[in-house]
Amino acid sequence: MTMQTNADRSRLEGVWCPALTPLDSDSIPDARRFGGHARWLLDQGCHGVVVFGTTGEAPSFSVQERMVLLESAVGAGLPPARLMVGNGCCALSDSVRLTIHALELGCTRFLMMPPFFFKNVSEEGLFRSYAEVIEQTASDAMRICLYHFPQLSGVPVTHGLIERLAVAYPGIIAGIKDSSGDADHTLDLIRRYPELAVFPGSDALLLRGIGEGGAGCIAATLNINPAAIRRVYDAFKTGDPEADVLHKTANKVREILDRYPLVSGLKQAMAHYHGDPAWLRMRPPLVPLGERDAGALLAALGAIGFVLAG
Amino acid sequence: MTMQTNADRSRLEGVWCPALTPLDSDSIPDARRFGGHARWLLDQGCHGVVVFGTTGEAPSFSVQERMVLLESAVGAGLPPARLMVGNGCCALSDSVRLTIHALELGCTRFLMMPPFFFKNVSEEGLFRSYAEVIEQTASDAMRICLYHFPQLSGVPVTHGLIERLAVAYPGIIAGIKDSSGDADHTLDLIRRYPELAVFPGSDALLLRGIGEGGAGCIAATLNINPAAIRRVYDAFKTGDPEADVLHKTANKVREILDRYPLVSGLKQAMAHYHGDPAWLRMRPPLVPLGERDAGALLAALGAIGFVLAG
Repeated sequence: MTMQTNADRSRLEGVWCPALTPLDSDSIPDARRFGGHARWLLDQGCHGVVVFGTTGEAPSFSVQERMVLLESAVGAGLPPARLMVGNGCCALSDSVRLTIHALELGCTRFLMMPPFFFKNVSEEGLFRSYAEVIEQTASDAMRICLYHFPQLSGVPVTHGLIERLAVAYPGIIAGIKDSSGDADHTLDLIRRYPELAVFPGSDALLLRGIGEGGAGCIAATLNINPAAIRRVYDAFKTGDPEADVLHKTANKVREILDRYPLVSGLKQAMAHYHGDPAWLRMRPPLVPLGERDAGALLAALGAIGFVLAG
Repeated sequence: MTMQTNADRSRLEGVWCPALTPLDSDSIPDARRFGGHARWLLDQGCHGVVVFGTTGEAPSFSVQERMVLLESAVGAGLPPARLMVGNGCCALSDSVRLTIHALELGCTRFLMMPPFFFKNVSEEGLFRSYAEVIEQTASDAMRICLYHFPQLSGVPVTHGLIERLAVAYPGIIAGIKDSSGDADHTLDLIRRYPELAVFPGSDALLLRGIGEGGAGCIAATLNINPAAIRRVYDAFKTGDPEADVLHKTANKVREILDRYPLVSGLKQAMAHYHGDPAWLRMRPPLVPLGERDAGALLAALGAIGFVLAG
């Protein structure tokens, strides 16, 4: 397989936060809170922010709601080069619309899940799903990070699909986010596809991943613990022998969050540590933690001495 | 559990066809062909037509595309009382929009899948997903058929959810489509919920289902074999001893279709029997059958002497 090697400076890498989506009292994405959160994430050291990934409850919002929030974020001064936009929908027409809209705003980086309703679909069908979005948007600037999350999508991004897309669209197919939670699978992707930016979908694999040539991580924990995770990344890059210790400390936060439904737990922590109960809002089918779980989560974070940096 | 018993004449029942969605050369739902197909289905004996079920590739189209097709269908004279509209989306805002739009057109029957992206969600979260659509659309006329299709949605409609919804919204919660393919589960639903119209998602269970008090079926095979399946239903209702024989004959068509991906096989048969290759079009991630499968499917249908009635 031949693939174009991207210039380093355009390579996707670092610690990217799939940002939570705050809601207003009408259950609509709250542009002001979102902008503030994204700005804080960048200030705290995230290399970039994913707008409308799974942690951002992407499929729970209409295309229109997603476009309005992205427009507000860019309008508020968030740099498009540091945003990655979720654009993988069940409807090809929705994916095309979101992608063209984001490109018009100057956003060129995309996190694209395959269409996730039909199951056991052919590699040919998935190839066409990606190819149609690329062909219909016709942008050489576009960079796509393929999104493998079989537990939620039910539709794996296979080696066959990756290779076919990378050959057909070199440069445009720029990376893979692996949220399978299977370390062996992530490390295998890193070794197989050195030209692609491979991101584990969790900070758990940050050090092992970059040690093998991975790109960093796209990890939900960054929503509340960005500075500590960035320090782990920087420690590795500078050969700091403390990297492992820093990672172990950062891992404690994720290990606590892992006990609860992801979005509910993170929004609970956001509400508490920012003193803003509006963060508890989420769209059904997700619901806030019950009182008992909420108390246990916050007690556990308190017990390890967790504080929000910044 | 107390539930309001619907008047018989408003009860959902019969053989309802989840209609295929034909596409034009731009891959947009083709209103003319759809209207013709739906009219033919009713003329051939279907009690009603589902617009945008799974067989209609519902999640592969944008909300706008779905609204335009429904408008055309109603505008072309299809009676709203004989349509059931798929309105279960991942985004609550999309479900609400589709539902209000359909109600404005006079369509009151809905087939509603739970939001299908997030998995292992709570019963409370799913209850809220349905309740919000019902509350936000605020129509007493609305009748919802819950849609259980765990193999595709990954989100089962549980007994707990059914019972909670039926108590909260008696009359509005009018039925269940069970596409699990598990006959025991369907028969159990029929016995547990006599006030609800329980439809197996396949014509395979038509006779056993109505024998136990089920409502009929919502079955993809009706797209090409409506008259024969309607005859089975009528034979049962009139006590015709030929009902079993008629069912066995009709079953042969479905047994052949079951060997191939559902939408691809049905569209292949439509293209062939209507002499209209436009029916081969489908949205990725679905793709037409390969030449070999297409040939085998048509040969098998030929071998049992299948002809399109009407």
